[in-house]
Amino acid sequence: MPKIVRFHQTGGSDVLKLEDLPLAEPGKGEVRIKVEAIGLNRAEIMFRKGQYLETPQLPSRLGYEAAGIIDAVGPDDVTGFRIGDRVSTIPSFPMGQYGVYGESAIVPAYAAAHYPDKLSAIEGAAIWMQYMTAYGALIEYGGLKKDDSVLITAASSSVGLAAIQITKAAGALAIATTRGADKKAFLLEAGADHVIVTDEEDLVERGMSLTAGKGVRVVFDPVAGPFLEKLAEVTAVGGIIFEYGALSPNPTIFPLFPALAKGLTVRGYTLFEIVKKPESLAKGKDYVYRGLESGALKPIIDRTFPLADIVEAHRYMKSNRQKGKIVVIV
Amino acid sequence: MPKIVRFHQTGGSDVLKLEDLPLAEPGKGEVRIKVEAIGLNRAEIMFRKGQYLETPQLPSRLGYEAAGIIDAVGPDDVTGFRIGDRVSTIPSFPMGQYGVYGESAIVPAYAAAHYPDKLSAIEGAAIWMQYMTAYGALIEYGGLKKDDSVLITAASSSVGLAAIQITKAAGALAIATTRGADKKAFLLEAGADHVIVTDEEDLVERGMSLTAGKGVRVVFDPVAGPFLEKLAEVTAVGGIIFEYGALSPNPTIFPLFPALAKGLTVRGYTLFEIVKKPESLAKGKDYVYRGLESGALKPIIDRTFPLADIVEAHRYMKSNRQKGKIVVIV
Repeated sequence: MPKIVRFHQTGGSDVLKLEDLPLAEPGKGEVRIKVEAIGLNRAEIMFRKGQYLETPQLPSRLGYEAAGIIDAVGPDDVTGFRIGDRVSTIPSFPMGQYGVYGESAIVPAYAAAHYPDKLSAIEGAAIWMQYMTAYGALIEYGGLKKDDSVLITAASSSVGLAAIQITKAAGALAIATTRGADKKAFLLEAGADHVIVTDEEDLVERGMSLTAGKGVRVVFDPVAGPFLEKLAEVTAVGGIIFEYGALSPNPTIFPLFPALAKGLTVRGYTLFEIVKKPESLAKGKDYVYRGLESGALKPIIDRTFPLADIVEAHRYMKSNRQKGKIVVIV
Repeated sequence: MPKIVRFHQTGGSDVLKLEDLPLAEPGKGEVRIKVEAIGLNRAEIMFRKGQYLETPQLPSRLGYEAAGIIDAVGPDDVTGFRIGDRVSTIPSFPMGQYGVYGESAIVPAYAAAHYPDKLSAIEGAAIWMQYMTAYGALIEYGGLKKDDSVLITAASSSVGLAAIQITKAAGALAIATTRGADKKAFLLEAGADHVIVTDEEDLVERGMSLTAGKGVRVVFDPVAGPFLEKLAEVTAVGGIIFEYGALSPNPTIFPLFPALAKGLTVRGYTLFEIVKKPESLAKGKDYVYRGLESGALKPIIDRTFPLADIVEAHRYMKSNRQKGKIVVIV
C-alpha cells in the first residue's frame, strides 16, 4: 500500500501524517502517477491550517505539485498519456480531492504535463506553480515589454525567482526585494538587476531612484497588508500591482489617493485564472516549455527532504530561510 | 471688472468670495470665455477644503466646468477657435490656475470644446466632467459590451446619471444604488434597469439576484471606504471595480480574499487619464458628441443658482439632495 500524507485536523506542521492507504484506481478523465518528487508550496501551509481559498474536508490529502511516472490511466476518455510517461502536475484541481503528497497520486489528465527530458524529477516538481503564476501576471495580464520595470517582493520564494527569470527573459528591469541582507547576493546571482533590502533601505526612495523617478510599472507581490501603501508609492503612473498571496496577517489598506492620482490598478490574482482557461493554459505551457528548453527558465532548488520528513519539510518552509523551491523526494 | 469667485483660506462653503478683478488677457495657447453657466462638481468642494488631488495656492480660483462665448484668443498658436464661438470647458487643467467660477474665465485652448447647438448653455456646462468620467471608465478602460452588467453607486450624481446613460447606450444592464428610497423613482426614470436602496435592502443579495447569481462585471463607485468590501462581494469573477472618488471619510480596505478568489481588479481612476492623452480625448469627445446628437446622452439638470448665490449653491451640493447637475447661471 502506498504511503500518503493526510491530516485529520487543521493546524501546525505536525498534523501531517504518513498513512498506508490502498492503491486507488484512476476514474474517468484521470491518470495515476507513481510519484518521484513533490514540490512544496505555501498554499499547502494555508490549506493545512484551514486558511486557504479551499476548505479541507477531513481527513484530507494535500499538495499541488508532483513529478513522476504514469502507472495507470482512467477508462475511455484520457488521451495524450500512456503508462510510463514522465509528467508533473499543474495546480488546477481541488487540493483536498487530488492532493499529491504521497507515493501515489491521482490527478485529472488535464493537470498532467510532460516536462523536458533534461530536467530531473526534482526540477519537474518545481515548474508549474512558480512559472505559471508568474507568467499569468507578468505576461498574460501584465503584458510585460522590454522597457518595463518590475518590482518583485518576497523574491527568494520559488514564484519570486520565477518572476525574476521571466522579467529578464522579457528584457525588462527586475528589482527584487528581500527583508534581510542575507539573501541579497543570492538574488543578484539569480538574475535580479537590483535588490532592495527592506529592513535596511527605504523601498520607495530606492525604487524611485532605480527607475529615474518614474516608479515601476508592474509590482508582483504575495504579501499584501499595510505594505501595499508603500508599493503604491513606488508604482508608476498607470501601473499595476498584482497581489497573488496573503502573507501579511494584517488588513490590506487600498491606497486610494495614490490610486486616484496615478490611475493605479490593484489586482487580485492566482494561477487558477490561467489554468482554468484552456486557451490561456495552452499559451502558458508553450511559454514555459520554450523557456525551459532555451534555459531562460531554470528551476532553482533550495533543498530536498525525504518523504518521511514531510513534517520537518513544512516546518522549514514556514521558517522562511529557503532560497528557491523545497522538494520532497519520494 | 468681471466678478470672479476666489477663496483666501480653505474651509467651508462661506470661504468663497465674489471679487471684482481686472479683466485678464489670454496668453499663448489660451482662450478667454465670457461665462454664461458654470457646472458644479464635488471636486471643487474638496479643493476648497484643501483635500483634493491638487492643493490650492491662496488666494485661489476654482471650478472645472463653464459654458460661454469666446471673447478673446491668445496670440499666435491657438487654432480652431474664434471670438464668438460657443464652447464649454473640459476639466483638464490645474483648477487653481484656471478655475472657471466667475463672469470671465481663461482656459488652455485644448480644454475648450464646441457643444451641440441644440443644448443650452446650462446643459453645455454639464457635459464634460460627467460624460468623460463615465466614458473613460466604462468604455475606454471597462470595454463595456451588450451582455455586461454595471453597478453604479451614488447614482443620482451627475456622473452617476451619465454612467446610467452610457451603460444603457451600450445595451448593458444598469443597476443603480442610492441610500434612501426618495431617489428611487427618479433613478428608474433616468434609465436605471434596477435600483437598490442600500439603507433598506441588502446590496449583495439583490445584486446577485439581479444578475442570476453571477454578480456584476463592472462597478463604478465614487465612495470607497469600508463599502468596497460589499462591492467586491457583488462583483463577478474577473470583474473590475472603478474607484473614481473618495466620498467616504473612512479607510478603504482592499478586499484581498475575494480579489484572490475571483481575480478582481480595483482601479483608481479619474477623467484626467483620458483628457491628458490626445488620442483618448479625441475618441472620448467623438463618443460624447455622437451621444448628445442622438439623444442617448442628455444632461440632467437638478437646479440652477445665480452667481451671487455661489455659497448657497455649494451648501446645496454638500447636502446631497440633488438629482443631477447643479448649475450656476452667470
